[in-house]
Amino acid sequence: MSDIYNALFADMKDAAALTEEYISLTFGDPDSDICEVAEAMKYSLFAGGKRIRPYIVLSFCRLFGGKDEAALPFAAALEMIHTFSLIHDDLPCMDNDDLRRGKPTNHKVYGEATALLVGDALALRAFGTAADNPHVSPEIALSAVKALSLAAAERGMVGGQIMDMYGESHPLSLDKLKKLQKLKTGALIEASARLGAFAAGVTEEDERMLKAMEYAGGIGLAFQITDDILDVTGDEAILGKPIGSDAENSKSTFLTHMTIEEAQHYAHELTEKAKGAISGYKGCESLMALADYLLTRRS
Amino acid sequence: MSDIYNALFADMKDAAALTEEYISLTFGDPDSDICEVAEAMKYSLFAGGKRIRPYIVLSFCRLFGGKDEAALPFAAALEMIHTFSLIHDDLPCMDNDDLRRGKPTNHKVYGEATALLVGDALALRAFGTAADNPHVSPEIALSAVKALSLAAAERGMVGGQIMDMYGESHPLSLDKLKKLQKLKTGALIEASARLGAFAAGVTEEDERMLKAMEYAGGIGLAFQITDDILDVTGDEAILGKPIGSDAENSKSTFLTHMTIEEAQHYAHELTEKAKGAISGYKGCESLMALADYLLTRRS
Repeated sequence: MSDIYNALFADMKDAAALTEEYISLTFGDPDSDICEVAEAMKYSLFAGGKRIRPYIVLSFCRLFGGKDEAALPFAAALEMIHTFSLIHDDLPCMDNDDLRRGKPTNHKVYGEATALLVGDALALRAFGTAADNPHVSPEIALSAVKALSLAAAERGMVGGQIMDMYGESHPLSLDKLKKLQKLKTGALIEASARLGAFAAGVTEEDERMLKAMEYAGGIGLAFQITDDILDVTGDEAILGKPIGSDAENSKSTFLTHMTIEEAQHYAHELTEKAKGAISGYKGCESLMALADYLLTRRS
Repeated sequence: MSDIYNALFADMKDAAALTEEYISLTFGDPDSDICEVAEAMKYSLFAGGKRIRPYIVLSFCRLFGGKDEAALPFAAALEMIHTFSLIHDDLPCMDNDDLRRGKPTNHKVYGEATALLVGDALALRAFGTAADNPHVSPEIALSAVKALSLAAAERGMVGGQIMDMYGESHPLSLDKLKKLQKLKTGALIEASARLGAFAAGVTEEDERMLKAMEYAGGIGLAFQITDDILDVTGDEAILGKPIGSDAENSKSTFLTHMTIEEAQHYAHELTEKAKGAISGYKGCESLMALADYLLTRRS
């Protein structure tokens, strides 16, 4: 297993480097009047992180025979949306977090008003970044913009965040919890797979898109269940954040509805199904390894 | 003059109704789990307002021979971006305003966290709304998405907001002040004219686009100068907000650099130049009247 993971980590590192290089390019020539906001945007964009979403974009594009240059604008856009959501999530009126990935959060460094605007700017420019893709047809670029918008707004990620806030003061049924996670985390992970497939010219009706969505839906949910388990069983030093916060906030999690063993079993089952959806495609090894890694990760 | 204004107001009212109807349609079937956020989005979207940006989109589309249905997705997107920026501007960490257009601000009604997410959702869905335009070519829809993203993010509106914050604690030269306003207010007004022209099939290189940009640049700056004058000479009851706030916050405005009379003269000059840019086109009357109205408005 460790050889497979080592290959995966090397591959993820390469994909992260490609994405970061592309993101840097999108900033263009410096403008001295807005250098503070550009610096604050880069602070959070380049604060580390696994770059899982860009990796999924690139991997599905490669799996279906596409070229990296067609995937990179979409990968960069996904990472901008993800980073914007983290900056806003950390704000005092939301989770009020001082640390993110072991570094001070954006508002701790630049102040609350700037962090708010930095998040806004990342959300806004993500769509121009996705649209500015000369390596796909205009029709495909437009489909990507629409899919990204839907996945991020109130019928996707933001809707999940709203359900999550509601869940802090109300118990959630298992079905509601699954829906919440499908929106909050799942929507952007599915969008990553979708945009990767788009970059390879795969359309919505294609059998391959169906399989990509099965994979992304499965690993997205397994990802969240694993998060809930790590919040109970994790090692704070490895995790980089305090454990036990869900119980402290009396939040409904998968562990409200099942034992740790049942949750582990469920996440394992979802991961196997996700892998099964794509196992027939040549070159699926990295996405198979990613699914396993997300299940067995300790941070 | 009052006949011309009456015709303008009737025309603006019609355009606002068309835009509002289109915005309503974009919400689609209700989803009970996200009804709170959808309701909070509609609260601010339908809180009144002059709908100047949608009116500019529709007017330029009509001026250049386009059809309303091609302009409406762009008009709706512009209004979503504008509304999102107002919601975030009103938040406690920004201007901390309790009232907007005489009604409680979004966070006063729904709480700060929800208002933050409502603004986010509006910004995110604006791009899907602009992209979902079957009445223009995919190339034009993509150009609209790119222009909207650029106009709104850190090299447009958000950059202007950042310069504005900096200006609250530092004196700004007249040149910096002009740049700030060109970004903060001007960028979305120019984008409105641009997307309206796009909807009529006018491309970036077209002479008509140049004229549209001259008009929008002129009225955008005149709009802001008039705002600064109203903050000193306005009637609070008509304005719907307290006057004197710029002086109280020792903010650099156009009146830091010129007398009221000089500012009025400058705004008048800009308005005349803006009108001159489009006066040769048949059907320019409504945009001419809009420029005059924005100069002589009292709120």
